[in-house]
Amino acid sequence: MSDFSIGELQKLHDVACTVARLAGNYMREDQLRRRQTPLATREKLNSVDLVTAADETVEKMIKDSILKEYPDHAFIGEESYSAGEEKRFLLKDGPTWIIDPIDGTVNMVHMFPMTAISIGFCLKSIPTVGVVFAPFLGGQGTMYSAIHHPEGGAWLSELGPDGPTTPLPLTSPPPPLPLDAPKGCLFFGEYGKDRRDHPQSNLTKKAANFVNMATEIGGRGGKGGMVHGIRSLGSSTMDMVYVASGQGDIMFEAGCWEWDVCAGIAILLQTGGIVVDSNPPLNLQDSDPIPMANLGGRRYLAIRGCSEDSTGRSPRMQQEALVREVWKRTERLDYQRPV
Amino acid sequence: MSDFSIGELQKLHDVACTVARLAGNYMREDQLRRRQTPLATREKLNSVDLVTAADETVEKMIKDSILKEYPDHAFIGEESYSAGEEKRFLLKDGPTWIIDPIDGTVNMVHMFPMTAISIGFCLKSIPTVGVVFAPFLGGQGTMYSAIHHPEGGAWLSELGPDGPTTPLPLTSPPPPLPLDAPKGCLFFGEYGKDRRDHPQSNLTKKAANFVNMATEIGGRGGKGGMVHGIRSLGSSTMDMVYVASGQGDIMFEAGCWEWDVCAGIAILLQTGGIVVDSNPPLNLQDSDPIPMANLGGRRYLAIRGCSEDSTGRSPRMQQEALVREVWKRTERLDYQRPV
Repeated sequence: MSDFSIGELQKLHDVACTVARLAGNYMREDQLRRRQTPLATREKLNSVDLVTAADETVEKMIKDSILKEYPDHAFIGEESYSAGEEKRFLLKDGPTWIIDPIDGTVNMVHMFPMTAISIGFCLKSIPTVGVVFAPFLGGQGTMYSAIHHPEGGAWLSELGPDGPTTPLPLTSPPPPLPLDAPKGCLFFGEYGKDRRDHPQSNLTKKAANFVNMATEIGGRGGKGGMVHGIRSLGSSTMDMVYVASGQGDIMFEAGCWEWDVCAGIAILLQTGGIVVDSNPPLNLQDSDPIPMANLGGRRYLAIRGCSEDSTGRSPRMQQEALVREVWKRTERLDYQRPV
Repeated sequence: MSDFSIGELQKLHDVACTVARLAGNYMREDQLRRRQTPLATREKLNSVDLVTAADETVEKMIKDSILKEYPDHAFIGEESYSAGEEKRFLLKDGPTWIIDPIDGTVNMVHMFPMTAISIGFCLKSIPTVGVVFAPFLGGQGTMYSAIHHPEGGAWLSELGPDGPTTPLPLTSPPPPLPLDAPKGCLFFGEYGKDRRDHPQSNLTKKAANFVNMATEIGGRGGKGGMVHGIRSLGSSTMDMVYVASGQGDIMFEAGCWEWDVCAGIAILLQTGGIVVDSNPPLNLQDSDPIPMANLGGRRYLAIRGCSEDSTGRSPRMQQEALVREVWKRTERLDYQRPV
C-alpha cells in the first residue's frame, strides 16, 4: 500500500462513502415505489429479472461514479462478473475496486433490512478501504467503513452523512476472546443458496457445522462448542462487519465471493481481526502459522480483534487457537470457482 | 376489548412507547459505560449476574412507570416471574401488562443490535397493545408498535420520538403468500438455549426442521421446503415483529415465553397475521379451523398478513394452508412450563 498516502486513502474512503449513500438513496426510493405499487406489479418486481435489474442499476451507478474519479483503476463488480465470459479470479496487484451493489438480495425482496452495498478497494490484493452501507437498517441507514493503514481507522455512522461517527471496534481496546472459546462466542454463518440434498452436500455439512458449534461441551462426539449463539442474517457482508466491529466473534461462511467480503475484510483487518480459509489448509502442521484467506477462495473464517488475555496470550495466538477449534468442529465445504 | 375505548387504548400505547424509549435510553447509556470501562470490569459485566442486574433494572423501570399510570392493572415481567415462586401461566382476563425488559440478552452482551424491549398489554387474554423497541438498531433505535382494534393501527418509528412513522405492514395491502409456499418464503427460527445432544433433543429437532425448510423441493423424503432463506437473529421478539411487518413470512419458535412474543403478537394481529401452536394440535382434522396459539404455550408459528391470491383464496385460507405445510416439514418440540 506504499504507493498511496494516507491522504489519498482518505479521499478514496470519502468517495466510496458518498457513492454508497447515493446508491442507498436509490434503493430506498426503489423500495418506496414497491410498497406503493399495486400487487400485480409488486409480484412481478419480486421475480428474479427485475431484482437483477435493480442490482445492475446500482452497480452501474457505483461504477460510473468511481471510474469518473479514478479512471485508471480496475473494477470488479458482481453483476459485471456474472454477465461476463471471464470466470477466473480477476484481482491484480494494482488499485482495484471490488463491489457488491446489493448483498442480501433475498432480504431486499422481503424488505428484511439486512441488505448492504459493499464497496472495497484493494492494493496489492489486500483490502485497504472498505465501505458497507445498509440503507434500510435504521432511519438513516447504517454505515461501517475503514481505512486499513497505520494512520487509518474504522468507523460506524448511523446518523446520516453529517452525523457523528463511532470508532470501531465498539469496545476499545477490544476484550480478549473467551479462554474456552468457542464457548461463549457469538457465531455467524449462512445456509446459502446450494440446497441440494445428499449426505455430503454443502447444505447438509453446513447444518451439521452449526449444530456442532451450538451443542453442549462433550456432545456430538466431542465436537460440541457451546457457542453463545448461531446467527444467520442472509448477508455475508453484514456477518463480516458485525465480527469486524466486535459485535460478534466468529464468521464462518463458504460459497460467497470476494465482492461479498472485500469491504468487510478491510474493516476487520483495521480492527485487528483475522480471516483465514474456512477449510483447514492441507498439510498445515499445528505449529505452522495460519495463512490469510485467499480473497478469491470463496471460503472465509473470520475472528474479531482482541487484546492480550489473562494468561498472556497475544491476540494472534488467541485467534489462531480459536480458528483451530472451529476447524475441529466443522466439515470441509466444497465450493469452486466456475472455469 | 370492549371495556376500553380507542382513546384509552391510544393513551396506553403512548405510555408504553414513552416507557420503552426511557428504558432504551438507559440501555444505550449502559452500553456506553461498558465500552469505556477497563477490560477486567467489562469481563465481569459479561457474567450472568451482572447482565441479570441490567435486566432487573430495566424491568423495574418499566414496571414502576406503568403501575404509576395504571395502578390497578396486572403486571407479568420476565424477571419477576423468574425470581418468583409461581411458575404457572399467570394471565387473567383483566387488563394485564406482559413485559420482557431485554429480549436477546446474549446479543446485548455481544453488542449485536438485535435486542429489544418488549411491552405488551392484554385484554381478555388477547394481545391488544404492543410496543417493541430495539434501542441499538439504527442511530435512534427502531420501534414497532400497534393497537389491535378496528380503529387501531400499526407503525414503524425509526427517526426518534418526534420523527415520522411508517404504517405497517410495510406493503399495504400486503401481497398474497407465494402460491407454492413455503417455497419462496423468508423463515425465522432460533436454535435456543436447550443445547442437549441426543437424537430427540430440541436442538437436534430444530436443526432438522431448519434443514427441511431449506432443502430443495423433493429432498429430505419430500419434506424439502425450498424457502428463500432461514434467518436466526437470537431474538424471538425481533423474529415476530419482522413477520408482523411483512419483512418476513414465517416465524417458527418454541421454548420462548409469553413476554417474548406478546407485544409482537399484538402487532401481528393488527396487520392481519396469525399465530398458532408450532406443534400441530392432536386430533386436528384437515378440515378443522386451526386455533390461535395459547399465549402461555411456549410454541409459536406465525404467518404474516396477506391479501386474496390469484386463485381466489382468502388470507386465512392461504395462512392455514401454509401452517399445514410447515407442520408437515417439522418435528414436534418438547417445551413445558415449570410447575
